[in-house]
Amino acid sequence: MPDPGPNPPAPPTIRPPHVVIVGGGFAGLAAAKRLKHAPVRVTLVDQRNHHLFQPLLYQVATAALSPAQIAAPIRAVLSKQKNADVVLAEARRVDSPRRVLETDRGEIPYDYLILATGATHSYFGHDDWSRTARGLKTIDDALEIRRRFLLAFEAAENEPGDARRRALMTFVIIGAGPTGVETAGAIAEIARTVIRRDFRHIDTSRARVVLVEALDRVLPAGFPRQLSDRALADLRAMGVEVRLSTRVTHVAPDDSDNAAPHVLLSSPSQPAPERVDAHNIIWAAGVRASPLGASLGVPTDNAGRVIVAPDLSIPGHPEVFVTGDLSRCAWKDSMVPGVCPAAVQMGDHAARNIARLVAHAPSQPFRYVDKGSLATIGRAKAVASISGMKFGGLSAWLLWAVVHVFYLISFRNRVVVMLDWALAYLFFKRGSRLITGERGGASPTPSATPPGA
Amino acid sequence: MPDPGPNPPAPPTIRPPHVVIVGGGFAGLAAAKRLKHAPVRVTLVDQRNHHLFQPLLYQVATAALSPAQIAAPIRAVLSKQKNADVVLAEARRVDSPRRVLETDRGEIPYDYLILATGATHSYFGHDDWSRTARGLKTIDDALEIRRRFLLAFEAAENEPGDARRRALMTFVIIGAGPTGVETAGAIAEIARTVIRRDFRHIDTSRARVVLVEALDRVLPAGFPRQLSDRALADLRAMGVEVRLSTRVTHVAPDDSDNAAPHVLLSSPSQPAPERVDAHNIIWAAGVRASPLGASLGVPTDNAGRVIVAPDLSIPGHPEVFVTGDLSRCAWKDSMVPGVCPAAVQMGDHAARNIARLVAHAPSQPFRYVDKGSLATIGRAKAVASISGMKFGGLSAWLLWAVVHVFYLISFRNRVVVMLDWALAYLFFKRGSRLITGERGGASPTPSATPPGA
Repeated sequence: MPDPGPNPPAPPTIRPPHVVIVGGGFAGLAAAKRLKHAPVRVTLVDQRNHHLFQPLLYQVATAALSPAQIAAPIRAVLSKQKNADVVLAEARRVDSPRRVLETDRGEIPYDYLILATGATHSYFGHDDWSRTARGLKTIDDALEIRRRFLLAFEAAENEPGDARRRALMTFVIIGAGPTGVETAGAIAEIARTVIRRDFRHIDTSRARVVLVEALDRVLPAGFPRQLSDRALADLRAMGVEVRLSTRVTHVAPDDSDNAAPHVLLSSPSQPAPERVDAHNIIWAAGVRASPLGASLGVPTDNAGRVIVAPDLSIPGHPEVFVTGDLSRCAWKDSMVPGVCPAAVQMGDHAARNIARLVAHAPSQPFRYVDKGSLATIGRAKAVASISGMKFGGLSAWLLWAVVHVFYLISFRNRVVVMLDWALAYLFFKRGSRLITGERGGASPTPSATPPGA
Repeated sequence: MPDPGPNPPAPPTIRPPHVVIVGGGFAGLAAAKRLKHAPVRVTLVDQRNHHLFQPLLYQVATAALSPAQIAAPIRAVLSKQKNADVVLAEARRVDSPRRVLETDRGEIPYDYLILATGATHSYFGHDDWSRTARGLKTIDDALEIRRRFLLAFEAAENEPGDARRRALMTFVIIGAGPTGVETAGAIAEIARTVIRRDFRHIDTSRARVVLVEALDRVLPAGFPRQLSDRALADLRAMGVEVRLSTRVTHVAPDDSDNAAPHVLLSSPSQPAPERVDAHNIIWAAGVRASPLGASLGVPTDNAGRVIVAPDLSIPGHPEVFVTGDLSRCAWKDSMVPGVCPAAVQMGDHAARNIARLVAHAPSQPFRYVDKGSLATIGRAKAVASISGMKFGGLSAWLLWAVVHVFYLISFRNRVVVMLDWALAYLFFKRGSRLITGERGGASPTPSATPPGA
């Protein structure tokens, strides 16, 4: 096909300033929405077509929710915002002197830029661990974890070897932040209740769930110690083995002939490293900022976060803003935390500053409003820290449910979400227990058992 | 790990006869359920962990439903049936003299066997077409078709070349049986309504949907001509280009430098083959029975279906039954059709015959009860042929909806399904418009456009 050539030059009218937002997560979407009535053109660039409600991703990984229940096409979210364009492309580099974003689909010039590409996993220099210890950041991550976890029970059901069966039914979750705590709680719960009667030869309630944390408490960031203790007690009551002050020193892949996949755990209280064989290892530990920030050529911290000015812009470029998990923004004695409400506030603030600059007004410094912290541990178990109040149990869980449904409304119908959840709660079933993926349902580790013999 | 060796020999008690069912589709599941109170042990073997409500698979492919809405784990369906065991394994061969099923997880001995592994696509000897013209039989097929179809609109949105943009927005569906008709109708509908306002640079309602059928009418099998004509008129009113008496003579893959993927169409009314460039080609034509049937060593027809005796057993092996799309069963002047109700009836009947044989009673011949035919074309458009009555329009569509919800109840909560559907109908949104898959959202055919420039 002949090259159609470049677009014809635009007619010589005065076009409104072009704001390019990179990333359709909480920060990027908040920024785009804030600019709905501003005299600008907005282009939102993302490599995926959907916004993801990441706080519930562990529910997809544990087969409670379907991907479509926690994600929405970015186009659909912005379909009524006539000044917003959505481009499915992978951003590669910012050329800030030329004011151009380079993507895999070509260059996009900008007048103002908001970077909101977030963070990915950090394996602390052990990137080879990623194959065995899958992280949980995207829908594909969640579906792969779900696939492995369902296949492990299937394989255990027909496994005659005790050691191997134990390894198939062992789950190691590395990192006891909210994602790790919630995932460990959900796995313990599903193994002890929902799927128990589906199997004939194994007792799924004997699945072993090990939660490993390098610091001396669960939920070490953003939660008061009192709630960490409460969450710890809840997890232990659910049968989760919580290992505090314990580091993972090695993650070994499945070496089908000799050894099951395993982790080595090291703690001051144990003289020698402990080996835990587990076919399901989930990485919920370090994060590292997206590499796009580094292309700005301004200082970053050791996690790759861009150090921003109080108004969220970067040094020397008042037209470039960095928000959400990609930014490092000082706040009081510490920094703005990497949580959803902070990302929303930062995206919104960057957009307001752009609207001010367009109107020839000065930008304003960002002020973070701490909305509190919430983590759920299981059915009717959660911990909450809101405006100095700390509580756990059913009331925290109800608050958690209300807050999450309320936020989900921004892209899904609130009625549908509430019905989905109410039914899931009442019937206590897991609706999404499907093993999909091109390899179909073939067992990851076929063994020479005569099943049903 | 040392080989754990074979299981220890069973204790010398008299065990009930072992019925092995291969395939958890409509026939296999019906057979398993029928044996719930029979004095037998049941083992259901499937390579996937889920039963799939295949008549609605096109709704997943067109982003109306989520996979979990039309599939259920086989274990969960049978969890209360204490005499049933589920094994996730790929059946490879039947050794009927030894009465053993060979799988990738070892051998499974049986006393009675029901084969219900269904059918797959047939590309009529052109297996190389399968990469370009994806069939629609599994959830993975549906997700891949969904991914391509959503990515095609994304790519078209930023495509400056007219010819290429047209090819991105062209859909060719090969085969006008129920799957082809329903898929073509759904794509035409979504392009003209739901996603239209999501895009800024293309008019999705100008998407071209071409439905190709070698015979001289749509729905050529199982529907009276009168309803074929009605469906044809409905499809054309929705903007679908229907090409009857037209054969596909070639399917060409994407040759990114020179040519878009395309099909060549040949019909008696045209002197030369017509080329249609299309980035979305869906195969809904031939089916071929699963290869497991051939391993029985008994006669099959040219589509690989096992020719069964009137009681659904095979010659020389009264303990082996073949059901559903894998079997060819004479009925009146023709044969039992390859539709869901027939599969359910055959699975049920084979199970009843086994129960009779176990009770030392003779098996009975199968009698097919024709429940009629139904196909939906779009919102409030369908055709139905029930007990000699033929009708179309809203009443047929309502009947279609009621029948499908009624059958779905067998594995999902009827209330949830009805709410899902009612909300989808009222809000007319597509909830599952997610592009997933390990390759993420990267465009299939990046072009050198400056998007948003």
